[in-house]
Amino acid sequence: MADDTGHREGRESGAKAGHDNERDTMIRTKLKDGTLKLYELEKELTPIDAIRVRRGFIEQETGTALDNIGIFSIDIERVVKRNCENMIGTVQVPVGVAGPIRINGGHALGEYWLPLATTEGALVASVNRGCSAISKAGGADVRILHDGMTRAPVFATDSIIHAVQVCDWVTAHRDELKTAAESTTSHGKLTGIVTFVAGTSVYVRLEFDTKDAMGMNMVTIASAKVADLISQATKARLIALSGNMCTDKKPAAINGIMGRGRSVVAGVALSHDLITKVFKTDAKSLVEVNYRKNLVGSARAGAMGFNAHAANVVAAMFIACGQDAAHAIDGSTCITTIDPTETGVYVAVTLPSLPVGTVGGGTGVETQQECLKLLGVAGSGSPPGTNAKKLGEIIGAAVLAGELSLLGALAAQHLARAHQQLGRG
Amino acid sequence: MADDTGHREGRESGAKAGHDNERDTMIRTKLKDGTLKLYELEKELTPIDAIRVRRGFIEQETGTALDNIGIFSIDIERVVKRNCENMIGTVQVPVGVAGPIRINGGHALGEYWLPLATTEGALVASVNRGCSAISKAGGADVRILHDGMTRAPVFATDSIIHAVQVCDWVTAHRDELKTAAESTTSHGKLTGIVTFVAGTSVYVRLEFDTKDAMGMNMVTIASAKVADLISQATKARLIALSGNMCTDKKPAAINGIMGRGRSVVAGVALSHDLITKVFKTDAKSLVEVNYRKNLVGSARAGAMGFNAHAANVVAAMFIACGQDAAHAIDGSTCITTIDPTETGVYVAVTLPSLPVGTVGGGTGVETQQECLKLLGVAGSGSPPGTNAKKLGEIIGAAVLAGELSLLGALAAQHLARAHQQLGRG
Amino acid sequence: MADDTGHREGRESGAKAGHDNERDTMIRTKLKDGTLKLYELEKELTPIDAIRVRRGFIEQETGTALDNIGIFSIDIERVVKRNCENMIGTVQVPVGVAGPIRINGGHALGEYWLPLATTEGALVASVNRGCSAISKAGGADVRILHDGMTRAPVFATDSIIHAVQVCDWVTAHRDELKTAAESTTSHGKLTGIVTFVAGTSVYVRLEFDTKDAMGMNMVTIASAKVADLISQATKARLIALSGNMCTDKKPAAINGIMGRGRSVVAGVALSHDLITKVFKTDAKSLVEVNYRKNLVGSARAGAMGFNAHAANVVAAMFIACGQDAAHAIDGSTCITTIDPTETGVYVAVTLPSLPVGTVGGGTGVETQQECLKLLGVAGSGSPPGTNAKKLGEIIGAAVLAGELSLLGALAAQHLARAHQQLGRG
Amino acid sequence: MADDTGHREGRESGAKAGHDNERDTMIRTKLKDGTLKLYELEKELTPIDAIRVRRGFIEQETGTALDNIGIFSIDIERVVKRNCENMIGTVQVPVGVAGPIRINGGHALGEYWLPLATTEGALVASVNRGCSAISKAGGADVRILHDGMTRAPVFATDSIIHAVQVCDWVTAHRDELKTAAESTTSHGKLTGIVTFVAGTSVYVRLEFDTKDAMGMNMVTIASAKVADLISQATKARLIALSGNMCTDKKPAAINGIMGRGRSVVAGVALSHDLITKVFKTDAKSLVEVNYRKNLVGSARAGAMGFNAHAANVVAAMFIACGQDAAHAIDGSTCITTIDPTETGVYVAVTLPSLPVGTVGGGTGVETQQECLKLLGVAGSGSPPGTNAKKLGEIIGAAVLAGELSLLGALAAQHLARAHQQLGRG
Repeated sequence: MADDTGHREGRESGAKAGHDNERDTMIRTKLKDGTLKLYELEKELTPIDAIRVRRGFIEQETGTALDNIGIFSIDIERVVKRNCENMIGTVQVPVGVAGPIRINGGHALGEYWLPLATTEGALVASVNRGCSAISKAGGADVRILHDGMTRAPVFATDSIIHAVQVCDWVTAHRDELKTAAESTTSHGKLTGIVTFVAGTSVYVRLEFDTKDAMGMNMVTIASAKVADLISQATKARLIALSGNMCTDKKPAAINGIMGRGRSVVAGVALSHDLITKVFKTDAKSLVEVNYRKNLVGSARAGAMGFNAHAANVVAAMFIACGQDAAHAIDGSTCITTIDPTETGVYVAVTLPSLPVGTVGGGTGVETQQECLKLLGVAGSGSPPGTNAKKLGEIIGAAVLAGELSLLGALAAQHLARAHQQLGRG
Repeated sequence: MADDTGHREGRESGAKAGHDNERDTMIRTKLKDGTLKLYELEKELTPIDAIRVRRGFIEQETGTALDNIGIFSIDIERVVKRNCENMIGTVQVPVGVAGPIRINGGHALGEYWLPLATTEGALVASVNRGCSAISKAGGADVRILHDGMTRAPVFATDSIIHAVQVCDWVTAHRDELKTAAESTTSHGKLTGIVTFVAGTSVYVRLEFDTKDAMGMNMVTIASAKVADLISQATKARLIALSGNMCTDKKPAAINGIMGRGRSVVAGVALSHDLITKVFKTDAKSLVEVNYRKNLVGSARAGAMGFNAHAANVVAAMFIACGQDAAHAIDGSTCITTIDPTETGVYVAVTLPSLPVGTVGGGTGVETQQECLKLLGVAGSGSPPGTNAKKLGEIIGAAVLAGELSLLGALAAQHLARAHQQLGRG
Repeated sequence: MADDTGHREGRESGAKAGHDNERDTMIRTKLKDGTLKLYELEKELTPIDAIRVRRGFIEQETGTALDNIGIFSIDIERVVKRNCENMIGTVQVPVGVAGPIRINGGHALGEYWLPLATTEGALVASVNRGCSAISKAGGADVRILHDGMTRAPVFATDSIIHAVQVCDWVTAHRDELKTAAESTTSHGKLTGIVTFVAGTSVYVRLEFDTKDAMGMNMVTIASAKVADLISQATKARLIALSGNMCTDKKPAAINGIMGRGRSVVAGVALSHDLITKVFKTDAKSLVEVNYRKNLVGSARAGAMGFNAHAANVVAAMFIACGQDAAHAIDGSTCITTIDPTETGVYVAVTLPSLPVGTVGGGTGVETQQECLKLLGVAGSGSPPGTNAKKLGEIIGAAVLAGELSLLGALAAQHLARAHQQLGRG
Repeated sequence: MADDTGHREGRESGAKAGHDNERDTMIRTKLKDGTLKLYELEKELTPIDAIRVRRGFIEQETGTALDNIGIFSIDIERVVKRNCENMIGTVQVPVGVAGPIRINGGHALGEYWLPLATTEGALVASVNRGCSAISKAGGADVRILHDGMTRAPVFATDSIIHAVQVCDWVTAHRDELKTAAESTTSHGKLTGIVTFVAGTSVYVRLEFDTKDAMGMNMVTIASAKVADLISQATKARLIALSGNMCTDKKPAAINGIMGRGRSVVAGVALSHDLITKVFKTDAKSLVEVNYRKNLVGSARAGAMGFNAHAANVVAAMFIACGQDAAHAIDGSTCITTIDPTETGVYVAVTLPSLPVGTVGGGTGVETQQECLKLLGVAGSGSPPGTNAKKLGEIIGAAVLAGELSLLGALAAQHLARAHQQLGRG
């Protein structure tokens, strides 16, 4: 089933080797003497050749063979335009599957096989065990609590009086700003404007419904339009389109409190019997591990995440599914709770801020697209937004599976043994 | 240069298709009726066949073609043992290069081409511009401030009196615990033991010099040994080998204050002239953007990171170089500073906690290994530890380049335009 | 002018000493043998006698003379009912004045003398110097950004599905809940309801306009009513009337982001000339101290406050003015900013969460009441709420004065000398 | 027992009224026309007269009678020199007692009556109930975990290379710096030096054993000496004697992790029977309240404190005992834990950072001194340091009592009723 034509670079370049070599030598000379920049190769060559020549140049410069990086099957034309400049090839990240996991979500309903791209031994096995427990328990409850992507431009004002005037102006012109913002995008809707003052700095946090896109791109463009209007009307100086109250790719309380991307909560009730059978431990131990580790331990460490390894699962799902890997940070702020119940425990994960999309970004790269298809969430949903919400719910359930499994393992004091056997790095 | 034999799966499976199909059908029936588990395939088949059959099963179950995921060149034998269970193939993550960047580190010295695995358009171009500015300025100063990987088992005691006794016992038996810990590893050295009390919970934070390994694996095994000794001697109950004061894969103040992995600081002096030429802005604007966005904006947002997009660069370098992607979180806690100077500005990034390694984990996967080779840091250094330190310094410099470039772009209010042109998602 | 009749306890008790002694002895015997509880004294005696007898009992029990604690002039009748149980007397906290400070607030307009209750040498002098600089600069700009006191009961639900249902119910019954809340109070208005989910826990953050009261009392009573309704309608179990998302008396990001009490911002422009004359330093040094200490230093320390000593001023004003001293914590989360300007600097303090009131609590105690009168904010304002807002603005300006002065002193490296001379503890 | 001579101001001023009035009028004229500053009064008059005249001036300026503020018995001579500039009198803060509480500390052993200075109705009653439960349970276990007061000067360097050199120099000259630091103080001992780098800023956190003093004063003076040496030797510019990594009067993770002042932990085991009798609730409810409110609620709020109202108790004890009220902030970072046990619960409070002293600061003011005497900790201990440690332990136990009581009340859903009855503001 592996598509031979996919392995295109090797062959295409092989086919016209003679002609290419001459041109390549000339280009390398130009690169060497600086008359041609490495990023200008796409202007002179087809993408596939540009990548090859660039890789060759780097091999020469560093004395390193990059054979494997040069083997790939993804469609380069789009990637070099949209996803990656100065491309020399790809890294191959192993994908394992965990599941099936039964999910009873607001959007995701049914059984899912989870693709996880990782090199951390034991992770897929761990999530797999969690999926098994969840499915046996009847499935994971999952809900989207909030949905909105944000940008917060920062403005400089002359005084705190001026700062307050800017806020007042923004509040008085919400409709106008909304219209302006939405004029820049065919899909996005401006759903919230909140202003913050810190001395003479004014932060205007704009929130959008970005449908199936993660949406940073559309939100940034729309925010630029809004920021210009504010700046013109109030004489506040626009300092940066992102003033860090967005907050993008930094752990931040504001995202926990106000939400960013898809806010997801997932939970499952496990019976005493299931806890014993799947995790070789008991309800009391699970509760105690969560209490002393995830709650008290994190509190004592000054941590902003109250979970075992939510970021592991989020990162692996994100890389598999073409999400922005740096957004795995948001996954790390997960709160994991384990309530003792009469029949066993109720375990839940709360992810207040999970930026995901099923269109745009890396979702179009073929391998990543296949992972999205595997989950039934590739491309735009019907109605728009449902695929991204579904993906958010699936990742929420996956995090629940990962938490359950690691906490179970810790409870059973099996962690070290698992590490020794599976070689987690 | 693309290695046709690398594209091995497609061809091998094609070669013995007839025979395989029969066996495959039988296996799929077993998978279907549950008499064979998906993760047991490697017991029945060679890794390459197990992956193929598993993928086929998933394709059938989900009605999704996974053609591209099935195309890869990496050595499967090791990967299925060490990096990924239930493997079905790989995702291909585009790799671009930025550079060269001149680095004046304590360990990394010279010019480097940075491999960045990303699907976020504009990121490589952005880092590239930063590299150019840094190199023109004479290179990035970089130093490792601290080096140590940690695990903090949590114990339950009967009372706060008992808790204090456990701490006292640990303090009195440091040498014994050190010997025990080091008996489990050929490379690791126990370099620190600190105890923390929270009510009846005792956290023993163990710090190790893990040489060129990121070291979580060896540290976990060594900690298990130490934890057993403590538990036996003090009657404290071991609750979890990781008590979240490690802190792994959660943003945590303790990592900022005590360090975890390699603590890296990088800086560069830019002249007024360079700021104007490369960034089309001026010193005052750069300082103001950093002040209102990275410092005041992050403070106002309750953020634990004071930077523009350090996590982007860390995540892209980590994925390219076979690091644990979930550790990109630590990169997100970077503090970026811009000091006005008489001649321009001094820009610096401080990454108190960067867990990196050049052996173990995903570093052995061929494509990732090639990225490490590109940087001259593959495998163990001489003396041991220098390669990992070098990698830490290179990533520190890369983050500096990324910060410089984005802050420069914001200062020049070019961000939105850049997004529109390059399609960042 | 000191009112001799104020010194009432000593004399009254002296007047009927013979008779009292006999009764006192009997009571002490009862206290000793446990047939009378210390807190039951007010049932047997007048407040003034109860205090005297209780103090005598404590003196006897501990062998300590409490002469000074027994000297006070405040009206005991109300205090023992509303402010303090088991009273034995008072501590006298020295009050100094700083000022006058010119304030150009939204509510406070004119010159104010600030009463500061403190035992920290140099504090009043420091604030005084700041007042002088501010007044010379034309006064402090001050504004109230937001106004609302909060309580957030926490409920337990059976599952995350149930949790979401509770949130939905609350959203659908806002008007009903508002009516119920406001039925419990003659002044308070319910101005906001926000729900938060963490696993199976639901937090309903209720915000009220409490007019001139700090309002915790009325808000708690109103929240109890709301909580009962929610509990009855949704079958969610009320766990605690305060679920820590209020957040009361703990530093919390939610208060910074959503505000609590009066959110205040104050600023002032200082000319180069003024900086030199008053602070013996220059604009550049002030900016650098704030940058390296208040911004970068706090970030590096994992601090939730970005200021020099805002809490000092807030605590001293709070104790003087009968506010809840534990609320000084909110003052500590202040963000202090210093912008370089063409003419010097613009210095500002942002206090997102300052719970203050001019009625209720300790505001009625005579000495504290006099401090409020001194500021022209005692009792209810016209319209209601304006006095509390005025007090919030005055404290904001006072914090600005304190920050200016200490940062100026640090800039001039005078801190140690000031300490040696003034004996700050 | 109330000392009539204590009421000195009123009478003394009355005695020589005629003569005074003339001089007073002259002085007021000078104050009015600015030829005499308000803070210069002590140069012209005795302290008692200066206070009277100043108060009179303020009364005139503000049209407010300050009768009660003028009534006090404390020794003014020392106060105006050491505790408060520009003094006009005192505020009287009601003091109630809670107890007795049995404490089984490392330093505090026996039964204690706790003085609480507060105007928050119900607080003393609440702590009292907690004391009763603790004493019935056999007493509170308390221990000092760590002891050390800190200052962290911040230095500016030219580059990150220079910054690292400064750190290296400090490390290499520890003994020299220790000698220099200790030359400035008769009591303090330098017990720790840790360096931190953030870009070009270097923070040198100096820790001292300050014996019975809270110690900020001595530490600041000693730090000035150390800072000068560092600055001279390394050419690093001293920016501020306090660089906010101390961290003083701001909630900060570094204080939680490294400790500041006295780090205290206190705990008590409560039987099922006691929980029922004293708190009218059960173990399970107590555990659940703590879990959903103090742990999950605080986590969800982005709080730095995981307790119910520790700051209330710390503030009330601090004001009563002449501590620095702004340091109550440190109390607010308390972590409260409730473990279910076979026999009931074990409740504990962990206060990683509690700056207390029994000499210096406000401890010498007579009313506050009496509160310290009541606790048997006034003045210097034998050996030095034991009194302050004892005070730390007592406050730890008091916080435990407060937490127990409020959590018990919440568990029993009695909070609102208590508020209605006792009028907490």
